[in-house]
Parts: sequence; structure tokens; C-alpha cells
Amino acid sequence: MNSPLTTDVPAAGYVHGYSRREARRLGDQADTLATLLHSGTSYPPGSRVLEVGCGVGAQTVHLVTGSPGVRLVAVDLSDDSLAEARARVAAHAPQAHVEWCRADLFDLPFADATFDHVFVCFVLEHLPDPVRALAGLRRVLRPGGTVTVIEGDHGSAFFHPDSAWASAAVRCLVRLQAAAGGNALIGRELQPLLTAAGYRDVRVAPRTVYADPSRPELVRGFTRDTFVAMVEGVREEALAARLVSPEDWDRGLADLRRTAGPDGTFHYVFFKGLAVNPADGGACGE
Amino acid sequence: MNSPLTTDVPAAGYVHGYSRREARRLGDQADTLATLLHSGTSYPPGSRVLEVGCGVGAQTVHLVTGSPGVRLVAVDLSDDSLAEARARVAAHAPQAHVEWCRADLFDLPFADATFDHVFVCFVLEHLPDPVRALAGLRRVLRPGGTVTVIEGDHGSAFFHPDSAWASAAVRCLVRLQAAAGGNALIGRELQPLLTAAGYRDVRVAPRTVYADPSRPELVRGFTRDTFVAMVEGVREEALAARLVSPEDWDRGLADLRRTAGPDGTFHYVFFKGLAVNPADGGACGE
Repeated sequence: MNSPLTTDVPAAGYVHGYSRREARRLGDQADTLATLLHSGTSYPPGSRVLEVGCGVGAQTVHLVTGSPGVRLVAVDLSDDSLAEARARVAAHAPQAHVEWCRADLFDLPFADATFDHVFVCFVLEHLPDPVRALAGLRRVLRPGGTVTVIEGDHGSAFFHPDSAWASAAVRCLVRLQAAAGGNALIGRELQPLLTAAGYRDVRVAPRTVYADPSRPELVRGFTRDTFVAMVEGVREEALAARLVSPEDWDRGLADLRRTAGPDGTFHYVFFKGLAVNPADGGACGE
Repeated sequence: MNSPLTTDVPAAGYVHGYSRREARRLGDQADTLATLLHSGTSYPPGSRVLEVGCGVGAQTVHLVTGSPGVRLVAVDLSDDSLAEARARVAAHAPQAHVEWCRADLFDLPFADATFDHVFVCFVLEHLPDPVRALAGLRRVLRPGGTVTVIEGDHGSAFFHPDSAWASAAVRCLVRLQAAAGGNALIGRELQPLLTAAGYRDVRVAPRTVYADPSRPELVRGFTRDTFVAMVEGVREEALAARLVSPEDWDRGLADLRRTAGPDGTFHYVFFKGLAVNPADGGACGE
């Protein structure tokens, strides 16, 4: 749900924009979801880890906190995002060893087999050719090293009360991301994508967010401040692209907000994949 | 995904029918899903437990296996289903103490507060008024006793490769169930439904099935033999109701079967709720 990482994306670019409000949304989201997304990811001290598409550092903080002693290299295309990420890590994990690097995922300035592990979160969703991206990462990953990939899937969003207008508003986001060269439904594809990119021992599992009135922190932190906020954020783009009328949009958002109300429920799935770079080179798609 | 339990349902009745093939499908489904659905449900020996809408006993077997020593009363509207359920339990759990009772959920022949726990699986989805059903069960449940409810939600089904035809075929099932007075999207509503029926300490959690080629037993046992088989089972009804053309149906089913193929993935959510019958009578909806 964040982090652009390629120059292949057309001018529309990063669907969520780079505003300060968006940076805060990403930070809120990462905090609410940290346990859900990061549990199970812990690299041994001294491991050389690459995070591609670190964006404003929303996940980077949790990565270095969950794996003390790693030597992390965090890469992004945007100097502004890197500066924000550096400040965020300095504030929240000052002891962390992080090198910051402005670079393109498809042209990484690292020697072959530089890293033990690669971490990719909310990046593939913005790329026109995720298999090429994953296959390319194998070059800088040592044989036997692992890649961890986390992506959402907006097709997993369903809610009560159900509403055709709310679903239509969510579909606007999916269509805008597709128009920008991405895929907001990519979570369900992680297993075949990692397999097609030549990785072995591919294991993908859903990480589900389910919020109802008995879980008020999730209703606030996820339904309202993460998901609804994200959809709200593309209003102008959706209207400019004439994907929806202003009236239908407003009704959709009103209905979507009701899912965070006293009788509302909300369901969303992230997918997390772990896979191994084969020692024999495998059928690398590069 | 099974078990009718009311005379309120119009003539179309139980959407999946009562055939021997359907009974086998329900048995396969229950075995594949037993751990997923039943984990966490274990009643102390001697507990008086009511299962409403036991159907052919697909869940009953797992219920008595998971809670040895309970005194179970299993209720269903259909004599044929009860006979089959009795045979199934005799074959798989001969030591179990089960009374079989033909009765209507809305007119149960038991004194007030007869049971310590009530178990309701794949029943509410077939009822026009699930809140009335849940509220009515509180009469036969002792104060402080619990109700456990499990329901699917066909709106949680998404898959790769994505297909508008496959989604349309799934929607046929949803529409047929709605026409029969039920709700195939009820899982997302369990929390508000239990709350509206006057229960306390309502906790609902998703129980997710995610199948991809690295989990071949789930691909066979769930994607193919449970979900696709269930959709296939309503072909004649869907065509008779003119919800879809034969060509679109066949394309939808072909696409749906592909999700069990070598690059396919499939996602589905059941919801499981646990709630307490308040000691003070609460705001009972009866």
C-alpha cells in the first residue's frame, strides 16, 4: 500500500501521492499492522539485508527493530522519501545500522550475491512487470538467500453493511493503480509470481485484518485511518478520470465509513511470501 | 455451507439439495476443514450441548470427537438427514453420547436453560431472520452458557487467475440462496447479528482457507472438491432461473477450475463467533 520503485511507471506515477498527510497515513498504517505483517521475519545479527522501495521508512523501522544487528541497505527512487525514512529510523531506532541508497530496482548498484536476504513490501503492486523485478533481485541475493514479499489485495476488501457504491469507490483505486501500470490485486498472485521468477520453496500465507466493534483499535487504525483514508485520498484523481460521479463517490465513501460504525465490520487480506534463491541458479527469468 | 433448518424457507428450500453426491461433498468438506473450523471448540465432559441443524452429521462427528464425554443433542428438520447423521457418527465416533431429534429451530421441544452450550454451523445462512433464530436459542441456553456460530461468506472468494465469468458464477449461488430466503454473505455479519440477538462478550474471528500449488491437499479438498463442486451443483437451478447463459456459466466454471491449476490460487473465509448468554436476561430479542 505504499512505496513506488521504478521509473517504468507512467506520469500518473505513485497512485497515493507524496504528501505529508500521506506520509502520516503510511506511518499509522505501519504501526497498526507491524505485528501482523512483520511477525515471523527476523534476520540473524550481521545479516546483510536489502529493503527495496523503503519509501518513507514505514516498514524499515519495524524491520530493524525486529532484527537487531542486521546490516540493512534501504533503497528508494525518491530522495525526499529517503530523507524522511532516515529521520524516521533515527527517531525510532537510532541504534540501527542502515545505509540509504537512491537507486532503481531494475538497476541496482550492488555486486552479485551481495545480500543474504531481500525484503520487498508494498512495491510489486506498483510495477508493470513484477516477475522481472523479482527475478532481477536474485542477482544481488546470494544463493540460498531468501526474499520476503508483502502485498495487499484490494479484491479482499469486503464489509458490512455491504454497499455497491462503496465497492465501486474501492474499484476506482484499483483502476487508477492499473492505469499507472500497477496491480492492486497482486496479493493473490504472489505464489505464482515468485515461482515464475525462479525462486524455490515458495510459501505464501494470508495475513488477515478483520475489524469489528469488539476491536476498536483496528476499526480506528485500519478501517478508518488506513483503508478509508487511502480510498479518500484518490477522490480528485477518480473524478478527474471520470471513473465515478461526485455523487456516487460521496455515497460510496459515506457507506465505506459506516463499516467503521457501531454495527460495521471490515475484512482485508495482506499476503506474505517467503522464498529461497536456488543455489544452482535455477530457471532465472532475467 | 450446508444444513437447512427452518420451515420458513420457500419451496426452493435448501439451495444445495439433498442428493447422495451432496452428502459426500459435505463429508469431504467437513474432513478437510475440521481443524480449521473446530479448533478452539472443546466442551468439558458432561456438558449438555445442542447442535442445531446437524444435517448429515458432517460437523457432528468432529464435535463429539473434539469434546469427548459431552451429552450432545443434535437437531435437524429432515428425518433422512438425521438417519444419515446417526450412521455417520456410529461409524466414526461410536462411543459418542448423542440424542437425535427432529425439530424446528424456531420451536425447540426443550425446557428453558436445558443446555450449557449451543453449536450452530452453516445454518444461519439459510434463514430469513437469523437474529430471531439466535435470540430464540437463548431460551434453551442456560445463563452464562455459550453459543458458537460458524458461517462462510461467498463474497470472500477471490482467486487467480481472476475472471469476471467465474465471479458471475459464484454470484449465481449467492442470488439463488437469497431467492430461497438465505444469505450467502452472512459471515461478515456474525458480530452484529450476535450482538443484536442479545448475546454478550461477542468475539468473531475469520478462519481463512488459502490454497495454492504448494498446498495440494487444500487445492483438491477445498478449491476443487468443496468450493468448485458446490458452485457446479447449482448449474441447473441457475440456468432455470435465467441468472446466466449456458455459455457464460460453462466459461465461469472452466475459469473457476483453473484456480485449482498449476498457477492458480484460491481464497475463502469462514467466520467463527463465540458469545455468552447474559445471566441477567439481557435485551433478548424474543
